[in-house]
Amino acid sequence: MSKAIGDGLFLDAIRRLDKAAQYADIDNESLERLRHPEMMLQVSIPVRMDDGSLRIFRGYRVRHNDARGPGKGGIRYHPDVNLDEVQALAFWMTCKCAVVGLPFGGAKGGVVVNPKELSALELERLSRGFMDMMSDFIGPEIDIPAPDVYTNAMIMGWMMDEYSKIHRRHTPACITGKPIALGGSAGRDEATGRGAFYCVQELAAKRAWHPEDVRVAVQGFGNAGQAVARLLHAKGYRIVALSDSKGGCFREDGFDVPSLIHHKNETRQLRAVYCEGSVCETVEADSLSNEELLELDVDVLIPAALENQITAQNAGRVKAPVRRRPRR
Amino acid sequence: MSKAIGDGLFLDAIRRLDKAAQYADIDNESLERLRHPEMMLQVSIPVRMDDGSLRIFRGYRVRHNDARGPGKGGIRYHPDVNLDEVQALAFWMTCKCAVVGLPFGGAKGGVVVNPKELSALELERLSRGFMDMMSDFIGPEIDIPAPDVYTNAMIMGWMMDEYSKIHRRHTPACITGKPIALGGSAGRDEATGRGAFYCVQELAAKRAWHPEDVRVAVQGFGNAGQAVARLLHAKGYRIVALSDSKGGCFREDGFDVPSLIHHKNETRQLRAVYCEGSVCETVEADSLSNEELLELDVDVLIPAALENQITAQNAGRVKAPVRRRPRR
Amino acid sequence: MSKAIGDGLFLDAIRRLDKAAQYADIDNESLERLRHPEMMLQVSIPVRMDDGSLRIFRGYRVRHNDARGPGKGGIRYHPDVNLDEVQALAFWMTCKCAVVGLPFGGAKGGVVVNPKELSALELERLSRGFMDMMSDFIGPEIDIPAPDVYTNAMIMGWMMDEYSKIHRRHTPACITGKPIALGGSAGRDEATGRGAFYCVQELAAKRAWHPEDVRVAVQGFGNAGQAVARLLHAKGYRIVALSDSKGGCFREDGFDVPSLIHHKNETRQLRAVYCEGSVCETVEADSLSNEELLELDVDVLIPAALENQITAQNAGRVKAPVRRRPRR
Amino acid sequence: MSKAIGDGLFLDAIRRLDKAAQYADIDNESLERLRHPEMMLQVSIPVRMDDGSLRIFRGYRVRHNDARGPGKGGIRYHPDVNLDEVQALAFWMTCKCAVVGLPFGGAKGGVVVNPKELSALELERLSRGFMDMMSDFIGPEIDIPAPDVYTNAMIMGWMMDEYSKIHRRHTPACITGKPIALGGSAGRDEATGRGAFYCVQELAAKRAWHPEDVRVAVQGFGNAGQAVARLLHAKGYRIVALSDSKGGCFREDGFDVPSLIHHKNETRQLRAVYCEGSVCETVEADSLSNEELLELDVDVLIPAALENQITAQNAGRVKAPVRRRPRR
Amino acid sequence: MSKAIGDGLFLDAIRRLDKAAQYADIDNESLERLRHPEMMLQVSIPVRMDDGSLRIFRGYRVRHNDARGPGKGGIRYHPDVNLDEVQALAFWMTCKCAVVGLPFGGAKGGVVVNPKELSALELERLSRGFMDMMSDFIGPEIDIPAPDVYTNAMIMGWMMDEYSKIHRRHTPACITGKPIALGGSAGRDEATGRGAFYCVQELAAKRAWHPEDVRVAVQGFGNAGQAVARLLHAKGYRIVALSDSKGGCFREDGFDVPSLIHHKNETRQLRAVYCEGSVCETVEADSLSNEELLELDVDVLIPAALENQITAQNAGRVKAPVRRRPRR
Amino acid sequence: MSKAIGDGLFLDAIRRLDKAAQYADIDNESLERLRHPEMMLQVSIPVRMDDGSLRIFRGYRVRHNDARGPGKGGIRYHPDVNLDEVQALAFWMTCKCAVVGLPFGGAKGGVVVNPKELSALELERLSRGFMDMMSDFIGPEIDIPAPDVYTNAMIMGWMMDEYSKIHRRHTPACITGKPIALGGSAGRDEATGRGAFYCVQELAAKRAWHPEDVRVAVQGFGNAGQAVARLLHAKGYRIVALSDSKGGCFREDGFDVPSLIHHKNETRQLRAVYCEGSVCETVEADSLSNEELLELDVDVLIPAALENQITAQNAGRVKAPVRRRPRR
Repeated sequence: MSKAIGDGLFLDAIRRLDKAAQYADIDNESLERLRHPEMMLQVSIPVRMDDGSLRIFRGYRVRHNDARGPGKGGIRYHPDVNLDEVQALAFWMTCKCAVVGLPFGGAKGGVVVNPKELSALELERLSRGFMDMMSDFIGPEIDIPAPDVYTNAMIMGWMMDEYSKIHRRHTPACITGKPIALGGSAGRDEATGRGAFYCVQELAAKRAWHPEDVRVAVQGFGNAGQAVARLLHAKGYRIVALSDSKGGCFREDGFDVPSLIHHKNETRQLRAVYCEGSVCETVEADSLSNEELLELDVDVLIPAALENQITAQNAGRVKAPVRRRPRR
Repeated sequence: MSKAIGDGLFLDAIRRLDKAAQYADIDNESLERLRHPEMMLQVSIPVRMDDGSLRIFRGYRVRHNDARGPGKGGIRYHPDVNLDEVQALAFWMTCKCAVVGLPFGGAKGGVVVNPKELSALELERLSRGFMDMMSDFIGPEIDIPAPDVYTNAMIMGWMMDEYSKIHRRHTPACITGKPIALGGSAGRDEATGRGAFYCVQELAAKRAWHPEDVRVAVQGFGNAGQAVARLLHAKGYRIVALSDSKGGCFREDGFDVPSLIHHKNETRQLRAVYCEGSVCETVEADSLSNEELLELDVDVLIPAALENQITAQNAGRVKAPVRRRPRR
Repeated sequence: MSKAIGDGLFLDAIRRLDKAAQYADIDNESLERLRHPEMMLQVSIPVRMDDGSLRIFRGYRVRHNDARGPGKGGIRYHPDVNLDEVQALAFWMTCKCAVVGLPFGGAKGGVVVNPKELSALELERLSRGFMDMMSDFIGPEIDIPAPDVYTNAMIMGWMMDEYSKIHRRHTPACITGKPIALGGSAGRDEATGRGAFYCVQELAAKRAWHPEDVRVAVQGFGNAGQAVARLLHAKGYRIVALSDSKGGCFREDGFDVPSLIHHKNETRQLRAVYCEGSVCETVEADSLSNEELLELDVDVLIPAALENQITAQNAGRVKAPVRRRPRR
Repeated sequence: MSKAIGDGLFLDAIRRLDKAAQYADIDNESLERLRHPEMMLQVSIPVRMDDGSLRIFRGYRVRHNDARGPGKGGIRYHPDVNLDEVQALAFWMTCKCAVVGLPFGGAKGGVVVNPKELSALELERLSRGFMDMMSDFIGPEIDIPAPDVYTNAMIMGWMMDEYSKIHRRHTPACITGKPIALGGSAGRDEATGRGAFYCVQELAAKRAWHPEDVRVAVQGFGNAGQAVARLLHAKGYRIVALSDSKGGCFREDGFDVPSLIHHKNETRQLRAVYCEGSVCETVEADSLSNEELLELDVDVLIPAALENQITAQNAGRVKAPVRRRPRR
Repeated sequence: MSKAIGDGLFLDAIRRLDKAAQYADIDNESLERLRHPEMMLQVSIPVRMDDGSLRIFRGYRVRHNDARGPGKGGIRYHPDVNLDEVQALAFWMTCKCAVVGLPFGGAKGGVVVNPKELSALELERLSRGFMDMMSDFIGPEIDIPAPDVYTNAMIMGWMMDEYSKIHRRHTPACITGKPIALGGSAGRDEATGRGAFYCVQELAAKRAWHPEDVRVAVQGFGNAGQAVARLLHAKGYRIVALSDSKGGCFREDGFDVPSLIHHKNETRQLRAVYCEGSVCETVEADSLSNEELLELDVDVLIPAALENQITAQNAGRVKAPVRRRPRR
Repeated sequence: MSKAIGDGLFLDAIRRLDKAAQYADIDNESLERLRHPEMMLQVSIPVRMDDGSLRIFRGYRVRHNDARGPGKGGIRYHPDVNLDEVQALAFWMTCKCAVVGLPFGGAKGGVVVNPKELSALELERLSRGFMDMMSDFIGPEIDIPAPDVYTNAMIMGWMMDEYSKIHRRHTPACITGKPIALGGSAGRDEATGRGAFYCVQELAAKRAWHPEDVRVAVQGFGNAGQAVARLLHAKGYRIVALSDSKGGCFREDGFDVPSLIHHKNETRQLRAVYCEGSVCETVEADSLSNEELLELDVDVLIPAALENQITAQNAGRVKAPVRRRPRR
């Protein structure tokens, strides 16, 4: 995700806003405010690495708008994250919270890091360092982060603990997506995927679909992708295609999703398998690239990887009549 | 000052740092920290204009490094100010405070605005709005702003008052360059120019110059330029060239600086005059452009306008053996 | 409301307290505490008017007693408001909260201003200025204001925003009666009138009244008066007399209250009308003064204007067997 | 000091302000601000008496204006203190601080109590209770009280301790006039009297007086009166008349002031005595009332009791060409 | 409770922890943290006694562990309380909160005092003094005390009021067990005894007991003992033995518990009585010591006095098959 | 230093206080307050070791008395430190600050650790952890730590940084003995030794000693010992005996102290040497134990190691007529 492309993300969002405004009864002042993120913070986080060396990581937090309540939005850890992307995502959080009527504004954050290259202790120090520098910006009544790409409950727990240390009181409400033992919400884990699942359910009811006739492709096999695939499969939908960052597989009859999840968790690899207990056997399936998956002739396409997979270039080739990205 | 050039300002500063580091005994970790500004904040400041409309202004504050103490650095109001420039100036503030041994770190701020287009009440609302959004970042022991290009004591006074209102106590120490009646420092006003004057004095002593033989050109006739020209003139130096943003004038015999200052204050115009009381007469002088002034064959050239006037392009043509920009 | 009368309001309240104490089992220390308002604050609020001039308004806040919890009570904007009145109303708030068992103490506030003479921007500046000066006194766990005479949801919203700005966090709980979009409570708007309506309902049940036989007079046609009249009318009561500050009207058969409300909202005038859609026609009715209304021979008299309309002078002439003032 | 007279004190002060404004170059907005005290606070302080009963005392604090810095002004304990008086004295504090160029605004406080009727423990509880209720209003950068009529260093010490307890840190700067061991200033004790003494000294220098020829009358023999009398006597001035609240004495040759101070401290009585060591003998002197003292034909008259002793009624009868009240 | 025994209480608790750890799946780090109380605070509380003298009391607060949430645990007033005991009880609070799944950690406090020797006003001053010194340690999100041995709702109320005074806002959540009028919970009073009652009920259900056949002995007739005895008696259990600190009584047929409670409340004495209205008559019963009570041959033994009544020495002699100490 | 001995340290201090009180005019209440340390805090500090394991360290802070101002006293890192010792040292700090008239109270702290066994990063984590847990207790106006046995400027710097992070502002005043670059005081380093040096100088002046005749023994060759030895040597005193924890050396002619310091810094060993530049040669000297050093027949004995070296046992054998321990 180059900076040039990045620059486009927020501008693109504002262009969509302006287009939408033509159809909505929204006064000019509100529109003008939506065009300008209220507050954008960039910090440099020094982290002592396990080998004794010092590395400095760049962190971001954008509070796009808090007219409706404290900011709300995730923190992602990704080597390509940049201010433009964070700014755009914060804008969409403002919209999303407003659309579903939550008393929250929109915010987003990120750290430029490949978390897979860090040890657990390094990750803890980075996460605490991020919260340390952001601490005057965050709070139950100011701005409330959450997990996002490559961040998880444990990272939220470290951040909450650092925040509580600085503010000298238990403050679980300063962040969501914490471990359940520290005050996290049950079901939070698979909420993104479950949201997509509910959408498909609603649609199926409306169109009087029979699940066994509905052929579904899911791009991305992380937290969101696994959850939506598992839930749809349990309801009888046919999950015919799945992929992760390394590629995917296709099978007309559909996959036994729990088997693929089990195998992925054991081996970190997505493979077309069927498992009995802990014994997994490969099943017949076709390989396909992420690009091919998007263009499959399926009934429902669920892009559950990073955003911006469906672009002006490939949109014309997407054949699935229904496609929806689970939103965090 | 286009963004493209802007982008270069901070990178350019770091390049100079790296070059300097080759000659200094500075450990790598310190160097690495200096390469990354600690904290950069961008805000959108909504201001109600006198005509009832709403305008949103972009504001910046960068705290480059606070290892030696609270951040210190001015806030400039300028239509071309941008994050890169503010970042670079904050870096130089870190260096400047360290070089003279002050217990302060480096910071800088700015607002994208042409203050000449705003009424006094609009300017007040903008300045209070800026401080309101920056208020968690600023403080006597955190970061202490000051006036800079197109900001003045009155603006600092508004900001201090807003800060005091929010923090519920008189806090004159949160900002410097306030009106003297509100706790400002005597002499603050002309300190920038006086610093340049001291440098010339030191040099004159070292080189055994006679002031009346020293021909001085001053680019810029704002606060700094007027002060250094007036002080040098009072000591007998020959001020042979002066300019403001609209151009300059040259006179081999030197100007009567107080006359030009008086006339400028009365008419907003720089003209080659000599005044008796309030009666001013034009004196013979040549017109010259700002570019020509820089390349005059004088003994001392003082660039007292915006930074980056002497560039790779014109540096070779500067003939003055001594040139120094007064630093804020 | 002259100061002389004003002075009497709090003393009068204490006299009633002392009389009541003879019948209640209340220890002397509690009584003594109730006789002395805990805290009374008077402030001068400088406001920049739209024409550039400066006006200074007097504001009050009295916290009468907070033994049972944070203070609670409205802020009124009225040219005649004074400390005595505010003190008395704060006392009654202590009693009212205690009587209905709310965990709140009693408080009240006011600003000496005729809000009708101010523009919306002036009103905003006044309201923010009031909260700015009161800010250390107010808070979800200290004292929680609300709207009162001539203050409304928008004013509460400005005050909440100013409080949140000063306290650096969203604090909707610092004030009640906010716009619903900012966290206000549904139904808050007509709560005062609805309370009076419930009282009449209770009474009707107890006395086995048929609404169509009950003749009601309502003095005051503001928020409270309109609501109680509308609700009673909807249940079939006969609203035979209505008035606003300029006088009233009487009609034996009762009025179509929604018509009168519609017309008042359109024209700011109370008139005896009947409307079909937006077309209103005058209906036959007698004019009467506010004094005459109070002395009408009706079944229920609801004084919904300012307090102290029924006095020692006219009390003997009030014929309605049931009279009750809706309480904020 | 009846309330009726009291009401006049602040109005009278504003009338003087308006008269002075005719001669001064002061803009209307500043004048308007000076006419309105910024903040006036009245509190009820419940105190548990030594006999177990509860008494509630009324306390005041007025911050008249803090444009020049935190409020400054004493707290008096007096049965007749009232809001009007405190308001007027706060106004004069604004003027006095401004006149001598101190970076402070004007404030004043008081408690309605006859401190002579309270035990030391009751006085401590009252003083702590006062500070408890005032605590959000007071502070080194907000408003800094001091002793005044019938309050002393010990009372300031209690208040400072209570303030420090509430604010969780040693805060000696929240109040002046503390015991020296707790951070009080040396010389504070007799500063009021010494100020008057300096005035007489300056005048004597200007008029080339010989102290032994100057006949001085001092009304009031409390802290201020004793100090000025002692200091003038030590320089050789003739102190011919002295009085306390019960009356005074006159002696053409002047009194040995240290003897009278010693005797007063031993016996609480002002008597015309001369002491050798601890043995005091009465000296010949005439009795006189406080009124007579004011009208004595002396060179210098020093009113060192409560304010407003010289009135429209008796001003014409005052014969002393120089009269000055020591100001706190 | 000598210090020597005291020293054993915490060590004894840790020994039990280590024993339990052998059977539980608990990682070493968690175990190590449980072995070390996070924070232990000892303070000296100066109290002015009614006779004017000064006494200094020792107070304790231990926060054993707050990984699961704010600390929670009572404050006891007892002449023998010491740091070891408080430390041990805080440890057990950690365990108890965790076992029942409450989001609280464990804490405990105490003051070395015999509260029976203090007047109500002295007790108030002591309780406020304790909270004053502990105030930075306590809070709704930090550590929340409660009543314990010889402390009650009134003491909690004083402490809450002192905390609210210092923190400048109503903070009922800083302590539990307050008077209901100040925000206490209904039923809190007898919760300890009711807990024990529920245990017996559960057991009775499991073992299909008939209450009238179950013979119960209750050691201790304070808050907990009275409540459990009363509740069991009301369900038909036979309360055959009761005791207070001065000894007990036994009656094979069981006692009419309400009569004994009534009599105890009237006379401060535990006696075997039966009351009709306010008239009580002695019933036949055997006297017995507290030691004898513990060793009675009953079905259920409820030790409701201080902890550590059943020791290595007498445990072998306890005959009751079911014994349980109500836990605070 | 066993606990048994430790227990005696505070009691011993109080015994000395009581003895001193017989000769001083000190009221009983003050005495009683001095007998009870105001506040004692014990914490458990979890530290992640470099090998990934977790260790928990015990830390202490005692504020003995703060009547005269914020607490003041060092933090020592020592495996034998315990609450009794810290309590006693805090008591002596109260006395020492009062004796020299500083506006500070007495405090002391400690951590049970052998710092030589920790890596620099472990030491940093421990020091930050200590400050984290103590942070509500420490502050420029509350209690201000300093270095002590085995703690140094770097440790103070870490603590200051942690404190500043938690309190969100540069707070160098929260601790003394910081690195000079972070706001430490010049000369702080050798202040302890210089104090002892001044004492000897004063004595020498009084007794008209010639330095070259004065034979000095210094026990302890750490910061204090080296400084006093170096300063005395520079003035011409004969330093005849020196020791560190491993033993000492004696030389009748005295040592060239700078040589021994140089050698110790290079080799961590105390040896009797004479150095020219970096070349050191052994000089003739006798070995002696620390016990023997104390009993040497010298003119001045300076115990500059840990306290309590001169005991009831060996006091009789100390022959030096002058002995004084440098006090921190």
